[in-house]
Amino acid sequence: MSTSTIEAETGSYPVTDRNRVKRLHERGSYDRTAVHAILDAGMLCHVAYVIDGQPFCTPTIHWREGDMLYWHGSSASRMLRHLKTGTPACLTVSHLDGLVLARSGFNHSANYRSAMCFGTARLVEDPTEKEKALRAVIDRFYPDRSTLLRPTTGQEIKATAVIGMRIEDASAKVRAKGVGDDEEDYGLPIWAGVIPVRTVLGETEVSPHLPAGVSKPETLSLYGAGTRLDDALTEAQRLYEEAGNQ
Amino acid sequence: MSTSTIEAETGSYPVTDRNRVKRLHERGSYDRTAVHAILDAGMLCHVAYVIDGQPFCTPTIHWREGDMLYWHGSSASRMLRHLKTGTPACLTVSHLDGLVLARSGFNHSANYRSAMCFGTARLVEDPTEKEKALRAVIDRFYPDRSTLLRPTTGQEIKATAVIGMRIEDASAKVRAKGVGDDEEDYGLPIWAGVIPVRTVLGETEVSPHLPAGVSKPETLSLYGAGTRLDDALTEAQRLYEEAGNQ
Repeated sequence: MSTSTIEAETGSYPVTDRNRVKRLHERGSYDRTAVHAILDAGMLCHVAYVIDGQPFCTPTIHWREGDMLYWHGSSASRMLRHLKTGTPACLTVSHLDGLVLARSGFNHSANYRSAMCFGTARLVEDPTEKEKALRAVIDRFYPDRSTLLRPTTGQEIKATAVIGMRIEDASAKVRAKGVGDDEEDYGLPIWAGVIPVRTVLGETEVSPHLPAGVSKPETLSLYGAGTRLDDALTEAQRLYEEAGNQ
Repeated sequence: MSTSTIEAETGSYPVTDRNRVKRLHERGSYDRTAVHAILDAGMLCHVAYVIDGQPFCTPTIHWREGDMLYWHGSSASRMLRHLKTGTPACLTVSHLDGLVLARSGFNHSANYRSAMCFGTARLVEDPTEKEKALRAVIDRFYPDRSTLLRPTTGQEIKATAVIGMRIEDASAKVRAKGVGDDEEDYGLPIWAGVIPVRTVLGETEVSPHLPAGVSKPETLSLYGAGTRLDDALTEAQRLYEEAGNQ
């Protein structure tokens, strides 16, 4: 039995040179559930990859099925020729949760949740896997929406590149607490506190071209005005898995 | 006069192989003002760099002085030994502004603003530049706050690595509009619309260790509950530059 199989059974990603949390390691975790929770609470990710020694940090939308991460791009994308054979990549999702103002510059900080995932990014070329992925990018965010839509054309499928990456190792890092001042600074007459940050949804702007009588699907109530985006996305992923998509 | 000087005078970054916007290029721009506006509206960035062929995508806090980008880390950081001599990096700031639900899967999208900046990341070793940067990381976000704080110790300065990168080329990419359905899909009985996303500040949580009579500095009213984080950060940068720090 390989080390990675053992790790999978214990619910943690293997710890390697590239995912070991070196800085403030008490904030780190290799637990699958912790990593997945951070990934699933976000829609926006950043992917690092290398072309001819030059690193690129590309923002995109990601989705997850088990230990597989997916994102997509145009078939005209810069990265595509490197994906045919597979290329090392690092996909990171981060949430800024608060500004931490301390009594010293050194103890200023931020509350955050971040997950860094390492693996080999590959173009999804199998037609069945690609079709499933193009449904997933809709239904993972908007429950059952793909069944309501105008079907995707062959040309549209051709124009879209889907990239998949199995998470080989990963780490989660979280700071979720108050001001971390040195005790000897408590008595100083300096204001300190945490300003929370949250990402929320606004009032839906309905398309002006909608035919009369077409109403918003009930399933989109997940994304009601004032709802936290991370909560909505976490719940959408739960529904997606519950529907047997995992 | 070099090309880059000419470009600086016209207010645009040079267009090179690495920053040319290839996908949906109508959303792209190389304009300094456009790039800086996206950078300045964010606190969280992602930096891509390469160690032994392996890309890393690291979330961190960045700040900007003219065409210089700065971020910091622990002196124990993985990246440090590569920074002594300078290493190619790509720093990206992205804002998710809306979920775009169309009548076809292909036309689903997101509203966003993102800036990708390329350059060579170097450790800031000059004591004067490092001291200035450690003041800037406070004052750029919280006007004049560094003057109110317990002074930074030599040990703290030693434990903090400051990284600087001159932006050599960059691109901004923005989608800020309604649903982009094909006209022939307008008549379909499918709901379509945009769900706006915004990142806002919550009610300040004051440190429980504060001595009596210490009140919140007036300058922090920038970060009042309900304020959009991007607006607050943009205004803080404006005040920082107005105070002669640019």
